[in-house]
Amino acid sequence: MKRADFTLPGEAGYESLTLELAKKWGADVIRDSDGTKLSPEIVEAGYRIYSTICIIRQHNAFAQEHPDAQQQTFLCSKAVTAEGTTAVIPLMDGYFTEQFVLNDSPDALRYMQVYDRTENAPVSPDAWTYADGQITLHAAKPWHQYTAGFLCYRIWEEINMYNHTTNSWTSEHLRQLDPRHPATWAYLQQWLEDWCVENPQTNVIRLTSLFYNFVWIWGDELRNRHLFTDWASYDFTVSPAALDAFEKQYGYALTAEDFVNGGKHQVTHMPPTKAKLDYMDFIQAFVAEKAKALVDIIHKHGKEAYVFYDDSWVGMEPCGKRFQSIGFDGLIKCVFSGFECRLCAFAKVPVHELRFHPYLFPVGLGGAPTFSEGGNPARDALLYWRSVRRALLREPVDRIGLGGYLHLTLPFPEFNDTIEAMSDEFRQIKSFHKNGKPYVLPCRVAVLHTWGSLRSWTLSGHFHETDKHALIHINEALSGLPVDVKFISFDDVKHGALKDVDVVINAGRMGDAWSGGDAWNDAELVAELTRFVGEGGTFIGVGEPSAVRGSDRTFRMAHVLGIDEDLGERVCHGRWQYEVEAAPFTVNEAALAANPHLYLTDGTARVLCEKNGAPQMTIHSFGKGKGVYMSSFSISPESTRMLLEILVHCCQLPGDYLSDNALVEAAWYPADRTLVAINNAEESITATIATPDGPQCLTLAPLETKMIKL
Amino acid sequence: MKRADFTLPGEAGYESLTLELAKKWGADVIRDSDGTKLSPEIVEAGYRIYSTICIIRQHNAFAQEHPDAQQQTFLCSKAVTAEGTTAVIPLMDGYFTEQFVLNDSPDALRYMQVYDRTENAPVSPDAWTYADGQITLHAAKPWHQYTAGFLCYRIWEEINMYNHTTNSWTSEHLRQLDPRHPATWAYLQQWLEDWCVENPQTNVIRLTSLFYNFVWIWGDELRNRHLFTDWASYDFTVSPAALDAFEKQYGYALTAEDFVNGGKHQVTHMPPTKAKLDYMDFIQAFVAEKAKALVDIIHKHGKEAYVFYDDSWVGMEPCGKRFQSIGFDGLIKCVFSGFECRLCAFAKVPVHELRFHPYLFPVGLGGAPTFSEGGNPARDALLYWRSVRRALLREPVDRIGLGGYLHLTLPFPEFNDTIEAMSDEFRQIKSFHKNGKPYVLPCRVAVLHTWGSLRSWTLSGHFHETDKHALIHINEALSGLPVDVKFISFDDVKHGALKDVDVVINAGRMGDAWSGGDAWNDAELVAELTRFVGEGGTFIGVGEPSAVRGSDRTFRMAHVLGIDEDLGERVCHGRWQYEVEAAPFTVNEAALAANPHLYLTDGTARVLCEKNGAPQMTIHSFGKGKGVYMSSFSISPESTRMLLEILVHCCQLPGDYLSDNALVEAAWYPADRTLVAINNAEESITATIATPDGPQCLTLAPLETKMIKL
Repeated sequence: MKRADFTLPGEAGYESLTLELAKKWGADVIRDSDGTKLSPEIVEAGYRIYSTICIIRQHNAFAQEHPDAQQQTFLCSKAVTAEGTTAVIPLMDGYFTEQFVLNDSPDALRYMQVYDRTENAPVSPDAWTYADGQITLHAAKPWHQYTAGFLCYRIWEEINMYNHTTNSWTSEHLRQLDPRHPATWAYLQQWLEDWCVENPQTNVIRLTSLFYNFVWIWGDELRNRHLFTDWASYDFTVSPAALDAFEKQYGYALTAEDFVNGGKHQVTHMPPTKAKLDYMDFIQAFVAEKAKALVDIIHKHGKEAYVFYDDSWVGMEPCGKRFQSIGFDGLIKCVFSGFECRLCAFAKVPVHELRFHPYLFPVGLGGAPTFSEGGNPARDALLYWRSVRRALLREPVDRIGLGGYLHLTLPFPEFNDTIEAMSDEFRQIKSFHKNGKPYVLPCRVAVLHTWGSLRSWTLSGHFHETDKHALIHINEALSGLPVDVKFISFDDVKHGALKDVDVVINAGRMGDAWSGGDAWNDAELVAELTRFVGEGGTFIGVGEPSAVRGSDRTFRMAHVLGIDEDLGERVCHGRWQYEVEAAPFTVNEAALAANPHLYLTDGTARVLCEKNGAPQMTIHSFGKGKGVYMSSFSISPESTRMLLEILVHCCQLPGDYLSDNALVEAAWYPADRTLVAINNAEESITATIATPDGPQCLTLAPLETKMIKL
Repeated sequence: MKRADFTLPGEAGYESLTLELAKKWGADVIRDSDGTKLSPEIVEAGYRIYSTICIIRQHNAFAQEHPDAQQQTFLCSKAVTAEGTTAVIPLMDGYFTEQFVLNDSPDALRYMQVYDRTENAPVSPDAWTYADGQITLHAAKPWHQYTAGFLCYRIWEEINMYNHTTNSWTSEHLRQLDPRHPATWAYLQQWLEDWCVENPQTNVIRLTSLFYNFVWIWGDELRNRHLFTDWASYDFTVSPAALDAFEKQYGYALTAEDFVNGGKHQVTHMPPTKAKLDYMDFIQAFVAEKAKALVDIIHKHGKEAYVFYDDSWVGMEPCGKRFQSIGFDGLIKCVFSGFECRLCAFAKVPVHELRFHPYLFPVGLGGAPTFSEGGNPARDALLYWRSVRRALLREPVDRIGLGGYLHLTLPFPEFNDTIEAMSDEFRQIKSFHKNGKPYVLPCRVAVLHTWGSLRSWTLSGHFHETDKHALIHINEALSGLPVDVKFISFDDVKHGALKDVDVVINAGRMGDAWSGGDAWNDAELVAELTRFVGEGGTFIGVGEPSAVRGSDRTFRMAHVLGIDEDLGERVCHGRWQYEVEAAPFTVNEAALAANPHLYLTDGTARVLCEKNGAPQMTIHSFGKGKGVYMSSFSISPESTRMLLEILVHCCQLPGDYLSDNALVEAAWYPADRTLVAINNAEESITATIATPDGPQCLTLAPLETKMIKL
């Protein structure tokens, strides 16, 4: 089975190590890493070769000659208080000047905008003038606060900036080009053409990634370096040319405020405005068209085109409607978590590849040592594997691999053994999927939020970047559960999306994209979900589900949940007394919050957990269905088990292939008649798994994967 | 000094006890208590006599003959889900039928209203019919939820209902009449006329109170008896006659929804609608007019009219513009707390009287024993006195008294000694006020909220009824501090109210009446407060001050505070790192909350307290002034001291007559050259009080009041 489905990062200067580990880990592909070049000994060793290209980067000479071809963004100045009738706004104050330089070209000045933050309204252009990096207001209103929105060039490609800063590099700062600039676009196509000719040994071009990075705005003060970071935001796609084209196509102009939004920007975690949705569609069309042109060049040269699903991926949207049209041959996702595995598996593309962690770097993303003194990369790898493995059991992925500098593994032979075992397990699991789908319980779960399938599985970035949101914990739990999962939007609900659904989950904070905000003012949505539960469905609400101000309740689904949150309008209302009841499943109190404002609506919900005198988890009958409420949800084996047991209870599911221990999960592959049991604990666990062939009592070593033919 | 300013509740059958305690406590007045009658021995003993009258109660015969003269209220039915195109709403379901009976007279049916809660819109009257206590919807929308708003008669006067239920009385349920009913009004005037003639010995008629009780809606289930209770709500003033008169006068009709508000009702803690404000004004005019007519009758008979500031006080509004026009001779307020003392003292009326606690009842309001086994009424009295005393030092009150059944004190001689000492102290403090105002620090504080001076000091009821609101804790702290305090509305700010103010306090939850809600969308308000701080003022924000959704920030005063709350729009923004700094005063961390969503706006605020990694208290320079933020405020001697020290620090106040110990407070009466020091601890405390005559080092016994002539 060895020598398949594994991508090894080769390293020049360590040729024998490269080939030795390629054999040990069963690699069939050797790739270069960011900023490195493979040596002929490696290239000619009989492996398929991936070569990494960041198409918009490493053209500093061109960028120097065409500074207007560089990428841009809108920024918002600090707010300035007018003490009299004049005020001066220094535009760049607080921003990292190695990243940004003001664009005060006539084209950009057309999009400069001054805003009265006290009145929450734009200021007439007659009332201010721009010169030398600052705006002077001539007719300010005393004691009002003003900001300006303005365009900047981004003069340091952000991934290079991050790596450079983190690793104290001294190399030249790499710039990035905007393919919307016609000369740039011609240049980039020719450059790729030339590259393909010059690199005949490359089988797969690994694009890292396309054109526009996720937004990453840095400040000049180390006390607050990362001013704004959103993995799915479109800020870095903008330019006067894009704005002009948008206006021509959509019939209305966007303004600076549509982007800077009072300094808040348009974060993915909040419901988008119509302008943002239009703009996203506009950019997605552009990115798909340009990406297809690049893929066509690659194909023309007999190579395959894989794309890395991160970094400058914005506009590509692998879960979006245009992704397939680009024609990629593979999608590569770096994964820390189970949901990222499902995110990759979900995309419609021939090959799905995961880049595992830890990255072969001295320190990890959080700054802790990995491949350096004090690090334990073997354990790191196993713990990431623990998260990913349960998702891999549910949906097939085609390949795995590593990234970084191979020589760093030398002092860590245990790591190399761990990867060897892991890649063998991966290939085994892949073989089960090849023979047929794993068994799932008859339970179809729909996660309901603003973005629907466009933001399947992920919210906006890695788990540790979004861990304040209950939904990412829910998604991570779901990623390894033996149930069907899909992601639907509020609009989908109104167009029949619930007809093949048993359970709807809505989990978020009031007003955010995951809860839904104003979408819940839609009577059709509420009535359809009410029907769904009334006729037997289950609605699981987490945090502030369906919450919006302005009706008779806060949670618009309170009638189904039997619990609601008081925003201050019911402080004079009595509260239903209750006894905390024994749940029909194991309640994991640690997963829940302590929201003091929760109250029972009509006293008929059963309270399964309370904190500080307020109910935090309830189950409520509504019509033929049920509403389940949890004040929050944080991931753990116990909370994952609780979620599974909620589904089993509400949908009256059979117990087939379920373990009796929260720390052990199982998957059943009917075609292979193979039961796979995984121990999610770092200790030995004995568990019994129910099967129609009788209970299977197993003892699993720490983190062990056990595969049993029945 | 004895025999002055003290009102004793006389008790028939205990004549000698009455006269003995009258002497011990220095009473000059003997009153009857609710439902009792004084005997001739007491009435003729040479004391002034107060007689209690509840004008709208104790007319059951008349009520029986004129059932339509009984008071009413709007109620909201439970929400009913339509599973098809018809639905039935049983109106009274869940309400206490001993309190309410449906009014389905033609007049009342005109105001019946069905609401589609899913659409958040009223249902056309064509779509439903009423019969036999229920509404039938003929054209319901499937899976929508419906409620009905409807009028009920209230057939059990609520104070009687409460006392009856609490004390397991078996007497007849007393009813209440609506003076808006013309025959009733004629009857009530004649009844008072007759009463005055029949009771020549009465010097003061103590009205308990006027016409309309605060709202107190009971449910039929003991698990949730008190469905809605709001001390300042106008629900119980309504009737078809009132609604018709309102429409005639204001030119628009009110609907059931204006009152029931989706079952939320119109709670005093939320900003009122325009309709509510108009309606309050309408009722206030009616109450003032009718009250004046009663007072005129009382005066005509040579008696004085005092009014009890509780129970059926709604519409009287002692802090309102019409109160003086009624012509009361005295106002009596029952007090648990310092703020209630200030509330009473604030009203413009010749005599201010406090009814102290504990009430001479076997159990207290919370259900704990007072004058019964296990009770310690002397300690209870001292602890209430501790709260009230510090407020009494600040503003003069004319009289104090007790209520209830005197014989219950027999087993508690220590209580009687305590009241003796307390009443002596009260008379002494009163004498200081008579000679001149106490010294205040040069610091003028304005508490800013929706209601302004109309809701000076109180929010809506007693401390223990509103203790979830930070503002009542602030008010209680302020009630005994040596600073000037006033209560202003947002409108007041725009009309110059800040010109004699040094400190503005805004303390509440986002959207509530105390924070202000949508009022903060007013640029003029924000600019004026910005000017105020910019020019040297101090703005203290507590909880979610100036908070409203929809601008670039959550706290509209965030620029002044240097701190803001993230509602989800800034989850992708970096947070300013900070060190917790030593405060220029003693921070009482226990008074603060742990709001995880707080963040520094520009990194310049000094963090004085953090919890769970988020700042909870900050001080920030803005222009020549300061912004101080506290995530909450809960009352204690230490937090009260912290508030004082914030004022001292921000306003650079002198330390005159301040103690060096949070448990000891002091007041200075320049005219008497008397320093009064109070020990708020139940243990002996030594403290030094700074005075221009040198520091005064004092040792005070537990809860002692020390008065020193300097």
